Amino acid sequence: MASGVEWRIRVADGSSEILVPESGIASRAWLLLKGLIERLVLKVWTFLKKAWDLGVADPRKVIHCLKVGMALTVVSLVYYLRPLNEGVGKNAMWAVMTVVVVFENNVGASLYKCLNRVTGTFLAGVLAVGVHWVATQSGEKFEPIIVGAAVFLLASAATFSRFIPTVKARFDYGAVIFILTFSLVSVSGYRVDKLIDMAHQRLSTIIIGTSLCILISMLVCPIWAGQELDLLITRNMDKLANSLDGCISEYFDSSEDAVDDEESQKKLQGYRCVLNSKATEESMANFARWEPAHGRFNFRHPWKQYLKIGASMRNCAYCIEALNSCINSENQAPDYIKKHLSDICFRVSSNSSNVIRELALMIKTMRKSTKIDFLVGEMNIAVQELQNDLKSLPTSLLPPPPPPPSPPLPEAETTPESKQRETISNTAATVPLIEVIPLVTLASLLIEIATRIEGIVDTVEELAELAEFKPAVQGKSKQDQSTNKSAPDEKKDEETIKALQRV
Amino acid sequence: MASGVEWRIRVADGSSEILVPESGIASRAWLLLKGLIERLVLKVWTFLKKAWDLGVADPRKVIHCLKVGMALTVVSLVYYLRPLNEGVGKNAMWAVMTVVVVFENNVGASLYKCLNRVTGTFLAGVLAVGVHWVATQSGEKFEPIIVGAAVFLLASAATFSRFIPTVKARFDYGAVIFILTFSLVSVSGYRVDKLIDMAHQRLSTIIIGTSLCILISMLVCPIWAGQELDLLITRNMDKLANSLDGCISEYFDSSEDAVDDEESQKKLQGYRCVLNSKATEESMANFARWEPAHGRFNFRHPWKQYLKIGASMRNCAYCIEALNSCINSENQAPDYIKKHLSDICFRVSSNSSNVIRELALMIKTMRKSTKIDFLVGEMNIAVQELQNDLKSLPTSLLPPPPPPPSPPLPEAETTPESKQRETISNTAATVPLIEVIPLVTLASLLIEIATRIEGIVDTVEELAELAEFKPAVQGKSKQDQSTNKSAPDEKKDEETIKALQRV
Repeated sequence: MASGVEWRIRVADGSSEILVPESGIASRAWLLLKGLIERLVLKVWTFLKKAWDLGVADPRKVIHCLKVGMALTVVSLVYYLRPLNEGVGKNAMWAVMTVVVVFENNVGASLYKCLNRVTGTFLAGVLAVGVHWVATQSGEKFEPIIVGAAVFLLASAATFSRFIPTVKARFDYGAVIFILTFSLVSVSGYRVDKLIDMAHQRLSTIIIGTSLCILISMLVCPIWAGQELDLLITRNMDKLANSLDGCISEYFDSSEDAVDDEESQKKLQGYRCVLNSKATEESMANFARWEPAHGRFNFRHPWKQYLKIGASMRNCAYCIEALNSCINSENQAPDYIKKHLSDICFRVSSNSSNVIRELALMIKTMRKSTKIDFLVGEMNIAVQELQNDLKSLPTSLLPPPPPPPSPPLPEAETTPESKQRETISNTAATVPLIEVIPLVTLASLLIEIATRIEGIVDTVEELAELAEFKPAVQGKSKQDQSTNKSAPDEKKDEETIKALQRV
Repeated sequence: MASGVEWRIRVADGSSEILVPESGIASRAWLLLKGLIERLVLKVWTFLKKAWDLGVADPRKVIHCLKVGMALTVVSLVYYLRPLNEGVGKNAMWAVMTVVVVFENNVGASLYKCLNRVTGTFLAGVLAVGVHWVATQSGEKFEPIIVGAAVFLLASAATFSRFIPTVKARFDYGAVIFILTFSLVSVSGYRVDKLIDMAHQRLSTIIIGTSLCILISMLVCPIWAGQELDLLITRNMDKLANSLDGCISEYFDSSEDAVDDEESQKKLQGYRCVLNSKATEESMANFARWEPAHGRFNFRHPWKQYLKIGASMRNCAYCIEALNSCINSENQAPDYIKKHLSDICFRVSSNSSNVIRELALMIKTMRKSTKIDFLVGEMNIAVQELQNDLKSLPTSLLPPPPPPPSPPLPEAETTPESKQRETISNTAATVPLIEVIPLVTLASLLIEIATRIEGIVDTVEELAELAEFKPAVQGKSKQDQSTNKSAPDEKKDEETIKALQRV
């Protein structure tokens, strides 16, 4: 601009204005291009930033990528450097392909794919060679018909089997590989003896690839699906407990601003993780069953039971969701009514969350708990007290007894009507139901949550039976000792406690 | 037994008993084997029965299998019958492999895989040829190092990109194919000119395979992911409405046994489908975006909005879950109290489910609705009435006014204490709160459900805007005409109705 010509016009008031020349097409195109490039750079930058954050948040993902890179490089270089003698070079691609397709984020998934791949390839290979032999024996005319019919029938049947839930869960990948291998071998059109030779080589390359995958995924920073599932469940339990506590303190401490910060909001929303983790739990449980013994888990650890625990936790989370909407609803009970139930609600929620936390601890340590029955008992006592408090609510919320009335008026004044009027006005002085409704809803949801927590307790105790949890550590405290008995006794105790509460 | 020797012993009371000879090892082994075979046959039979039921329940699955078989047979036979000249025979397997791996249950998934496969192969091929060229130029010593480093870096990076949610949703398969092709080409060790020739042939075989897949999956009984998603959402809406109605009638008509049959139990549990369909919705929406215009849907139909609708429906289903637990809880309000709110609860639930059904109709017909604002208004009026009824509950549940008292007693009797006693006894005569609690909880959950249904209405109306739903059909009835205005007017109307209700 400094070097260009300047246009000025004199305005009515005597001052002058500089006219900015309209930019030419070239400079406008340049601006447009510059804008585009800037936006592209920004987009790439945001993408890289996001990727970086992802890596920082879970470094194991980065490690997994390096593992894949390593496995692939090893396979590639072995075949690259090896002299291309007797056909192994041609089949090298099967090893590479196997590594690429089979290497998964956790050991269970890799094992599942490896075993499926090997079994699928083997079965399909044998079957295809058989069909091929039959086809070649039946003359040139029928050969393509037999091969075509076999491919059609087996491919359709194998595809259909993938829709069957049990097959889908365990052999989905194997079915794909079966179809693939069968078609490839059938189409190849080689003679049977050559075919067997080829199949042998191919199977051995695939086994080399799968072995490498399994070794690397199990030995270099392994991620076990079972352990992940275990961790997911216990973490979700803690989140559930935090949410429950958070909900109740948010409701009753609404005056304090301490609960408004981001951290506690996140805690409060923890139950959403429980609601959304069904799919993850299922796939993890599916993969975990392929894993050998690792860490604290045996080979046939009852992974399916974890799904039941997850379902019972979701069941509880639904109620916490409803509870949360109570808290955020517009019409709230006035503070003086809230105060009335505040203590007992706090007790119910803290006792309930203690039960959940103890369950999480049980799963984490894989030990039976000495405290769990005691804690469930405490929770039930608190629930019973809450119910009693609710029962006494109308009476206790009566306003303090009216001051002694003025000396009785003459007889004419105490007509039936006036008496009735007095009664009604006195009734109206009790807290109107509409004001108690939000609180009552909250309380009955709390009671329902406690019931559902007992459902979680049941599933976790089933797990303790199935997975043969170690007995609890003795002599932690006097209290622990007193409740530390064998499992059937414990159950009896619990029933006694419950029965006592009902009285 | 008839031909064998019989052993008898004479028992104390004079009768004789036949001793059955112990069966030999051979016959026991036979029995064991027979048992095993019988169990195996039974297992296979159950499996086949299950598979048959699956096919009968959804014949489209069977059709899909036949389609896969057809595609595969066509590809196989083309290559089988074709003379194995100039290398096409060798690459035939790529066409077969493409068909096996790419053919999916719905058009969107097939398209997603096809496009990813072609793009991934192309990009990786170009890059690999480049790297290969650089490697060969840099001397024999550095060649394996450069190839190894390139494979390691690109494989790691591509694997990592699969963890990034946006990449995972759209290009997951493409990333796998990219790694696969890049490694294969790098490992192959051919000269560059041969490589380009091979890459060209391979790409063309892959394109033949994908084209066949796309043609068959789009032309023969196509299953569109978009249509499936649409159907899933509207079906779930109907289920939600049925569940809500079912819950309320189960609660209030508990005396009738008509609701106990299996059919209505299934209806009642319909909300569970809504709770569990998140994963399906997400994958369908992911695939639907790849589909061209089909049926009533344009190419860029706002499929993401369906996910929002699904989320708002789940939000509502959580509450219905809590409602359902109210119904099954042990302590119920006595019938005479239930009766008091029965009519209005029925009205709220039927109005609410009408709103949901109208929303489902809107999505099914892709027309804006003339009735929806009216129905939402009706629902809100019913909710308001329910709130009013709740407010008046303590007063209206007062026992009928006491009979006129006996003529006033002498002055000494009407002391303050006796008056107070009378008041309290009268108050206690109102229904105790504890008896109303289940009903009150139910009512407030109903109110919450109505609020959440408005959330569904909002998301569906957003969809109507985004997908440019056709205007409503005019002149259905007088009522319809009066509410049939342009969208902004309708919103205003709704607000007016709401404001009126608040007064």
